[in-house]
Amino acid sequence: MEILITNDDGWGAKGILTLVRILTQLGHVTVVAPDGPRSGMSNAISVQQPMYLRPLNDPNWGSEDWHSNATVYTTNGTPSDCVKLAIDVIFEGDPTRINLLASGINHGSNAGINVIYSGTMGACFVGAEHAIPSIGYSIDDHNPEADFSFFEPYILELTRHLLEEGMPYGVCYNINAPVGPLEGVRWTRQCRGFWQKEMEERTDDNGNKYYWLTGEFVNIEPEEEGTDIWAMTHHYISVHPCTIDQTAYAEI
Amino acid sequence: MEILITNDDGWGAKGILTLVRILTQLGHVTVVAPDGPRSGMSNAISVQQPMYLRPLNDPNWGSEDWHSNATVYTTNGTPSDCVKLAIDVIFEGDPTRINLLASGINHGSNAGINVIYSGTMGACFVGAEHAIPSIGYSIDDHNPEADFSFFEPYILELTRHLLEEGMPYGVCYNINAPVGPLEGVRWTRQCRGFWQKEMEERTDDNGNKYYWLTGEFVNIEPEEEGTDIWAMTHHYISVHPCTIDQTAYAEI
Repeated sequence: MEILITNDDGWGAKGILTLVRILTQLGHVTVVAPDGPRSGMSNAISVQQPMYLRPLNDPNWGSEDWHSNATVYTTNGTPSDCVKLAIDVIFEGDPTRINLLASGINHGSNAGINVIYSGTMGACFVGAEHAIPSIGYSIDDHNPEADFSFFEPYILELTRHLLEEGMPYGVCYNINAPVGPLEGVRWTRQCRGFWQKEMEERTDDNGNKYYWLTGEFVNIEPEEEGTDIWAMTHHYISVHPCTIDQTAYAEI
Repeated sequence: MEILITNDDGWGAKGILTLVRILTQLGHVTVVAPDGPRSGMSNAISVQQPMYLRPLNDPNWGSEDWHSNATVYTTNGTPSDCVKLAIDVIFEGDPTRINLLASGINHGSNAGINVIYSGTMGACFVGAEHAIPSIGYSIDDHNPEADFSFFEPYILELTRHLLEEGMPYGVCYNINAPVGPLEGVRWTRQCRGFWQKEMEERTDDNGNKYYWLTGEFVNIEPEEEGTDIWAMTHHYISVHPCTIDQTAYAEI
């Protein structure tokens, strides 16, 4: 089994290292990850800059048994670029050679409206475009030292289950875990909500006003049991099937 | 009527100037546009850089009658940032003050899978998140001097029609025109297809290999009459209702 792993926090993040350690149990892992943080990159692609693809040259890499079952590359591109580089350069234009695309584990939730901004999920949408079974994993904790221990046993189980079930063309999965002890797993839909008060006004050293992205999330339907955010606030892992088909069919 | 206009080709593009000229017929226009090209930025947001919002200081601006009905700002941010800056800074956190968000006219088609990579449509998804009626306009021509003359009369008519009909929460429109004489308008769904051979290998001045994004689009369902790409190849304008809810409901 050949597994492609990427993320949007960069190759050095604890989340991707955890995911590689877990998924090397299922097969050989190829990592193509950004060379630094690329959060909030959505499905952005590098149309105006050269992309480099470099084998990782890190003396610590290779020090664990499971490292020998992984090959690691980094790039200056986005998470979406990572998947495209993997398909076209490493797998020679043949996406069917990739049995699973796993993205994450993201440091931060990608539930609700966050899915449209997420670089983690952007990578999965590229996978789904190419009919690669694709799963994004995120935890609701931005801490670089986030504790994945409660989430870990579910990752292997859910990944195996979703691969067995299969995914129709264009479908991928957005798996989000809350922190701490977990009650189990819920299949969910995307919660409706929006970000507000996103622009914090600041002043630079030259006295010019600028804005820094921040904000607070407003949940439009906090009591609805079927949503991804409901699941997470009730200590469940949210398994959210997503599609790259953004058609609003009711409006045609 | 208050109209917010943005794009992903930057404030100086012919497409946005055309859109401003057309839509000033419907009300006052506020432009918040990137200070340069931001194609392929999808829903990317600036989580790691300061954003500046500057009134446009261009001596040519104001030379036409209709310019007096428009206020123009530029930013170093992405198309999604443009909408967030407009809502929180210019409209003081109140998206209901914006009666229409218009994005484009993009130089290049955003039909099919392109919708997930499009900065033009990324801006519309932010609008839809905030319940602002949002419409993206694109033409299947990357030429900076693209001829919008066949498309123009439809833009005003379709905009009025869609505003009258209204849009449910989370829904926005992706309008794509082919070049040349037009047969009319079709309501469409997103065509299935994918990009292949996207990485062109090149060598930089230091002898290092790099990749440049290119590619060819493969249409999985070229004979299906209901798709956006079918409409365009048959000389129709495609009106594609989109949703920010990426849930694959059939899989729950």
